[in-house]
Amino acid sequence: MSTLFKKIALVARRNSPNIGEPLRRLAALLRQHDCASIVLDADTAAEHPIPDTLVVPPEQIGKVADLVIVLGGDGTMLSIARLVAPYRIPLVGINQGRLGFMTDVGVDDIETIIPRILDGDFVPEERMLLSAKVIRDEREVHAALAFNDVVFSRGSLGAMIEFEIFIDDQFVYSQRSDGLIVSTPTGSTAYALASGGPILHPTVPAIALVPICPQTMTARPIAVNDASTVEFMLTRGSEVKVHFDGHSHFDLREMDRVTIKRYRNSLRILHPVGYNYYDMLRHKLHWGERLF
Amino acid sequence: MSTLFKKIALVARRNSPNIGEPLRRLAALLRQHDCASIVLDADTAAEHPIPDTLVVPPEQIGKVADLVIVLGGDGTMLSIARLVAPYRIPLVGINQGRLGFMTDVGVDDIETIIPRILDGDFVPEERMLLSAKVIRDEREVHAALAFNDVVFSRGSLGAMIEFEIFIDDQFVYSQRSDGLIVSTPTGSTAYALASGGPILHPTVPAIALVPICPQTMTARPIAVNDASTVEFMLTRGSEVKVHFDGHSHFDLREMDRVTIKRYRNSLRILHPVGYNYYDMLRHKLHWGERLF
Amino acid sequence: MSTLFKKIALVARRNSPNIGEPLRRLAALLRQHDCASIVLDADTAAEHPIPDTLVVPPEQIGKVADLVIVLGGDGTMLSIARLVAPYRIPLVGINQGRLGFMTDVGVDDIETIIPRILDGDFVPEERMLLSAKVIRDEREVHAALAFNDVVFSRGSLGAMIEFEIFIDDQFVYSQRSDGLIVSTPTGSTAYALASGGPILHPTVPAIALVPICPQTMTARPIAVNDASTVEFMLTRGSEVKVHFDGHSHFDLREMDRVTIKRYRNSLRILHPVGYNYYDMLRHKLHWGERLF
Amino acid sequence: MSTLFKKIALVARRNSPNIGEPLRRLAALLRQHDCASIVLDADTAAEHPIPDTLVVPPEQIGKVADLVIVLGGDGTMLSIARLVAPYRIPLVGINQGRLGFMTDVGVDDIETIIPRILDGDFVPEERMLLSAKVIRDEREVHAALAFNDVVFSRGSLGAMIEFEIFIDDQFVYSQRSDGLIVSTPTGSTAYALASGGPILHPTVPAIALVPICPQTMTARPIAVNDASTVEFMLTRGSEVKVHFDGHSHFDLREMDRVTIKRYRNSLRILHPVGYNYYDMLRHKLHWGERLF
Repeated sequence: MSTLFKKIALVARRNSPNIGEPLRRLAALLRQHDCASIVLDADTAAEHPIPDTLVVPPEQIGKVADLVIVLGGDGTMLSIARLVAPYRIPLVGINQGRLGFMTDVGVDDIETIIPRILDGDFVPEERMLLSAKVIRDEREVHAALAFNDVVFSRGSLGAMIEFEIFIDDQFVYSQRSDGLIVSTPTGSTAYALASGGPILHPTVPAIALVPICPQTMTARPIAVNDASTVEFMLTRGSEVKVHFDGHSHFDLREMDRVTIKRYRNSLRILHPVGYNYYDMLRHKLHWGERLF
Repeated sequence: MSTLFKKIALVARRNSPNIGEPLRRLAALLRQHDCASIVLDADTAAEHPIPDTLVVPPEQIGKVADLVIVLGGDGTMLSIARLVAPYRIPLVGINQGRLGFMTDVGVDDIETIIPRILDGDFVPEERMLLSAKVIRDEREVHAALAFNDVVFSRGSLGAMIEFEIFIDDQFVYSQRSDGLIVSTPTGSTAYALASGGPILHPTVPAIALVPICPQTMTARPIAVNDASTVEFMLTRGSEVKVHFDGHSHFDLREMDRVTIKRYRNSLRILHPVGYNYYDMLRHKLHWGERLF
Repeated sequence: MSTLFKKIALVARRNSPNIGEPLRRLAALLRQHDCASIVLDADTAAEHPIPDTLVVPPEQIGKVADLVIVLGGDGTMLSIARLVAPYRIPLVGINQGRLGFMTDVGVDDIETIIPRILDGDFVPEERMLLSAKVIRDEREVHAALAFNDVVFSRGSLGAMIEFEIFIDDQFVYSQRSDGLIVSTPTGSTAYALASGGPILHPTVPAIALVPICPQTMTARPIAVNDASTVEFMLTRGSEVKVHFDGHSHFDLREMDRVTIKRYRNSLRILHPVGYNYYDMLRHKLHWGERLF
Repeated sequence: MSTLFKKIALVARRNSPNIGEPLRRLAALLRQHDCASIVLDADTAAEHPIPDTLVVPPEQIGKVADLVIVLGGDGTMLSIARLVAPYRIPLVGINQGRLGFMTDVGVDDIETIIPRILDGDFVPEERMLLSAKVIRDEREVHAALAFNDVVFSRGSLGAMIEFEIFIDDQFVYSQRSDGLIVSTPTGSTAYALASGGPILHPTVPAIALVPICPQTMTARPIAVNDASTVEFMLTRGSEVKVHFDGHSHFDLREMDRVTIKRYRNSLRILHPVGYNYYDMLRHKLHWGERLF
């Protein structure tokens, strides 16, 4: 019996009928393993009801469980990460199909790998999150966490946006562009990478600012210390939105300010023994394929 | 008296009160120069009425004039370019403020440069346009010209789009990204450049395809022959738009196809004597500033 | 019997013992096909002697043969291309291992594909070359052809070089960098691509200028018309070399000028029926692999 | 009298006759300020002898002085930085011409700014260095420090090099390219930036690995934790060199390994009051100039 994790929550990707089978296999495995109680978030339970489980709203998982096992992909991991971040409970990611950046247990390896993790045989990894606040007329009008990135982007009508960036209250630059990505090291292999940003190893305590199609030849990605407060001020643009991990967003008005800093808690991901960030990266990015 | 240009249209930037003064100076100059008739587009005339001019709707300028002088910036030039392209009449661009990529006569040089151009003393430059057609269920549902670019872009909700590209009916690639820019050489120094595309000299008979934040590490800009037909097929995405020079757009649905080819007419821009594309480029792109 | 090609030259990759077997298979096939005479370049003959063949120095292949079949890879193709370019005879490329950008007949397909090509069943493709001349003190001191690129590069001691670029005698920019790549469309998928240049379809009549690690934030690749004369003038640098296809080089001195223009002849490559540039590109560049 | 700095070393750019005048002004200022002793490195003294100074070999400056004032530019600062790094004494940088990334006191401001710095009125900034060791046949054959970067680069003959990268003994990737830049945050605005690397704020405890013209489409810059040991192993290449700050180099042979880690000491730069990294960056990189 796992002495480490007594109440284990299972969270499955939404609208994914095939995930019912591995979910039930996982639940059976936990029972065999004398897991004290199995928790399901209400969404997972609605799609895949499992008897004798505790069903709670997604945002309460962190309160009642001491481990979360995610079945799905990096997207599912992202959604749940922000919900459990305030509670400091660890996550394990099981990918249904191909290897994810964070979901590194294959669905076929559930029976061999999960028991070892429950027994404490894992490689833990701390990942930072960002805490963002939208300030309008000196009042906080919205707050959100982000595990990958806080993205400022123009509306669909094609007009560029204009904004100013301050770091620790010092003016850094004004920019006209399609937007800006403020990314954690975790997010550095997501949208920020597609926009020309650098890869930051998860242990680098830094926040990356990556411009999206800037209207200047001299803009470059910059990584700043994770103790910094990044402030974005929208000076011009309509239909501008700030997105949190691409999962939720908030509509910005001109002169809104958004402050972004490292969230006080880190997220703990438990990887199978043998996990190695660089192996995963090499696999995901197809490093090794030659051009000529 | 100019034997080359008898009916000269003047088009001014919208919502730009200060442009009335140079506009009137220009009109006076044309009259001194025995210009047979001065044509104003209705929008310009509404903001800056000038007596004894022929006022026509913007889309009829090409029919009645044999030269268009644009006062404003590259944006104004862009709007009028698509309207006059079917009529093969040349344009001269006067910039109100800083040098434009296409508007290279300074407002202070009107009196010295415009008379020489009217007398045939100019450097002509041919610029290609693109002709785009949107095909839905085998029917053409929209058609537009573009002088800079045809841009496919995701909606404001942040979800990527998926599409396939065919060139001359051959499959080239499928891509998941923020969008794609299909650009003329003229557009290669506009949005396409901000998205990492190459600069194409105006005389290079090519169309550039530049991905916007592609979700793959191997996507690269490609320039294809201007005799090619580029076809974009939207396979997935909501709120997707196709933009023409950033001035007009059309809402796309999944499985819509957009074909893009070189427009049959070129646009002729008349530059002052001494004009040199590379000088302009070096100035606009700040070539020559060293990093270290 | 092929009425198109009577004298066929075979050129094999150097120092490649395994290539003897397919070379002999190929020779046997040509004899069956009533090829009037088989020509071997002296280097190939020295490594892989074949009876009853005409052996000539490599630089005379173009004079005596009316088709060249290359066995090896893109590198072998490159070396022979410059030698036969003056004679306008076509090339077929057989790759020993993986698909090349230009060598697209697999060694296992020799017996099925080569006879069809000899019978006139092929997809011809014209590829441009560059002609470069080094001018020192107003005298031409070196001349060379390039099929991929003319590359200017710093010496091994790490100091940057400084140079000026003129196009058609107009000053374009001065630059401090590791060097510059002047590339044909063929070369646009070679070193130029590794240095951030655009892909140019072989039918785009353009020459690309791609800077290597420029010491300025505003340098960008530019493609100019293939009728242009590009001139490079070395203003500062020691140990600077100009390389032709990475196969030969010439040492430059400060104030040397190198002029580069399209070579008068094109090279004709014969591809198997079904060849498609975009298919090859997609395969070689691994287009289609997604990041996330 | 400065109670902080009693023995102050002056180091001037080499082969720079004009620097004699500000050097003498600076020496006079120090005497007025009751500086106990002025130290000159032997090279500076040879070019610009100043009476009543202590002349020592450059590598002994760190032993005898407790502050170094550098006159020149970032290059002079780089050379001296590696020499004094073992001794933990601070540096002040005076630029003769334009603002440097590290030399931010203008020559005209010597009299106003230096006295304040001597009095303790400055903004200190810690900068990391790298310690590199070359291992051949299990023996250390060379060791060097780098303040900007350790650069692996191909020889002048144009052939690519092949190498493998290990971080903390874990295989990361093998690569064929022109070379690799391993950079400190300080070096992130130097050669690494020209090669497409990200800017790292000096307080980000990270080491950046930036490939130079990699022969693969998927290579990207990566920043790793400053506690990491980066190992480069040359698997193929002739004439390959490893460069330290572009100031010294060592010839590598195949199978040589080079280990790079953060050097135990940081370098302390003293900036004038009001110094702000982002202001400097914005100025140096010309942030703020718009494209269109």
